[in-house]
Amino acid sequence: MQPYRTPNQVTVAVIQMHMSSDLSDNINRAVAYVRQAAQQGAQVILLPELFENLYFCQVEEETYFGLAHPLDAHPFIPQFQDLARELGVVLPVSYFEKSGQAHYNSLVCIDADGTLLGNYRKTHIPDGPGYEEKYYFNGGDTGFKVWQTRFGRVGVGICWDQWYPESARIMMLQGADFLMYPTAIGSEPEGVLSPNSYQMWQRAMQGHAVSNSTYIAAANRTGIETVGGLEQTYYGHSFMADYRGELIGELGETQEGPLLHTFDLAEARKFRAGMGFFRDRRPELYGPLLTLDGKTRVER
Amino acid sequence: MQPYRTPNQVTVAVIQMHMSSDLSDNINRAVAYVRQAAQQGAQVILLPELFENLYFCQVEEETYFGLAHPLDAHPFIPQFQDLARELGVVLPVSYFEKSGQAHYNSLVCIDADGTLLGNYRKTHIPDGPGYEEKYYFNGGDTGFKVWQTRFGRVGVGICWDQWYPESARIMMLQGADFLMYPTAIGSEPEGVLSPNSYQMWQRAMQGHAVSNSTYIAAANRTGIETVGGLEQTYYGHSFMADYRGELIGELGETQEGPLLHTFDLAEARKFRAGMGFFRDRRPELYGPLLTLDGKTRVER
Repeated sequence: MQPYRTPNQVTVAVIQMHMSSDLSDNINRAVAYVRQAAQQGAQVILLPELFENLYFCQVEEETYFGLAHPLDAHPFIPQFQDLARELGVVLPVSYFEKSGQAHYNSLVCIDADGTLLGNYRKTHIPDGPGYEEKYYFNGGDTGFKVWQTRFGRVGVGICWDQWYPESARIMMLQGADFLMYPTAIGSEPEGVLSPNSYQMWQRAMQGHAVSNSTYIAAANRTGIETVGGLEQTYYGHSFMADYRGELIGELGETQEGPLLHTFDLAEARKFRAGMGFFRDRRPELYGPLLTLDGKTRVER
Repeated sequence: MQPYRTPNQVTVAVIQMHMSSDLSDNINRAVAYVRQAAQQGAQVILLPELFENLYFCQVEEETYFGLAHPLDAHPFIPQFQDLARELGVVLPVSYFEKSGQAHYNSLVCIDADGTLLGNYRKTHIPDGPGYEEKYYFNGGDTGFKVWQTRFGRVGVGICWDQWYPESARIMMLQGADFLMYPTAIGSEPEGVLSPNSYQMWQRAMQGHAVSNSTYIAAANRTGIETVGGLEQTYYGHSFMADYRGELIGELGETQEGPLLHTFDLAEARKFRAGMGFFRDRRPELYGPLLTLDGKTRVER
């Protein structure tokens, strides 16, 4: 088989949608949006985080562990493999993974021929009002992942990962051509974040885009969800930014469907090398990054 | 001596000014702006990078090495120590350092009693049209620095450092209450960056502000400078951002003088702990950050 060459351009889509408690309806609508995006010319199509269901991490309830399945015996991933093969598109798919007795917030990258390229387990697990993820998920143990797909080297982080410069930098160091983040974020029940935290959310990733001279794309869910009596509003605003961190596309708070943009990867590569951020890094002085407290090295 | 307590508030000033080829005029105007900022209530006052002279790194000329002096026999640093003591303000002062046969782009932090708290040598050294710093400066060997001053723990990076999430994160891990960056940036002679790169420049630091839930402040020079026949326009836009990355103060392209803001450090600390970014880091998975190529560990 011919090895893939890094393309000069790639057309990327993020899909923004609401979720309901009807799992097969969610899957069916996700499939329909993927078809729509592919028809419009998208080559890599990103669905939101855990799009199979409502964002159940609003509450801590045993019953939701029943949604977790092993990657090799999964209820809906084979369907997306067929879809990727049929449409000839790359699909990074977010799902709730069970492995042994551990549970992960995972993502599998499906290449345009339907092949599973590999599995990523969310590294950074949030915990706070409305985002009780530490109840459900082990911290990911895969490290950060970049996959050589038919349409370029794709680096994907999951939601909370998107706030971490460490995730973005490591994926770029591993040769990513661009970065993607499936997301579930909205207003918080106790008002810790303002309803307008979407700007802060975008700003963090625009920062990664600048510091790494790379395109990024984020897909969020939208709509009001009530889980266990708690109501949360997911604020949409799925977006893409270019290698200068400028917004190049954005959906509104309640819009649904695909947002497409063609990334000029050749231009980004040239700009990245010219800026020289990666030339001038000083890893020998970055030891404190491997600590939690600025002092004690944590390694495995 | 009573150890300092971290204050709940601090009033910070950044000073934006033009430089000329008259060194003592530059120093005198810098001193006058520091007095003005102190009079307005500033407690920590940041001058731009290498404010003693024109930004000579536009060109590569031996003569400019003559501006470098050892920290312990420096022509203008004692004057700023006296000034800090007289006004009771903290002054992080940028200067061209000679040590042995090495040259550094350095900064010394002067506490409000005139004490030298320590020296930082710029870690990340740029090199490109108009910014020929690798000709003049060794890469810094001090590591990143945070100083406990009378008015809080101050972390300072120098210019190119400000594009690096690594610098910001390490200073925060070392307990910084807020971050500051003296700068010399403008349009590039060959148009590598657009004249509006100031937005990209701000975005990188707004990203650090969000990812670290911290206030930041940057002081740039302004004005058109001609060095060795080359003309460069420094674009000002010195600014401050809060712990959500929102701009809370900004000067125009050609404005001169101090910009002040009171940082609510207590609120920032509460917000930072509540967001939980530092709680959820996973240093055991950050090994690739200590590489240049994503593979080979570089350590000292």
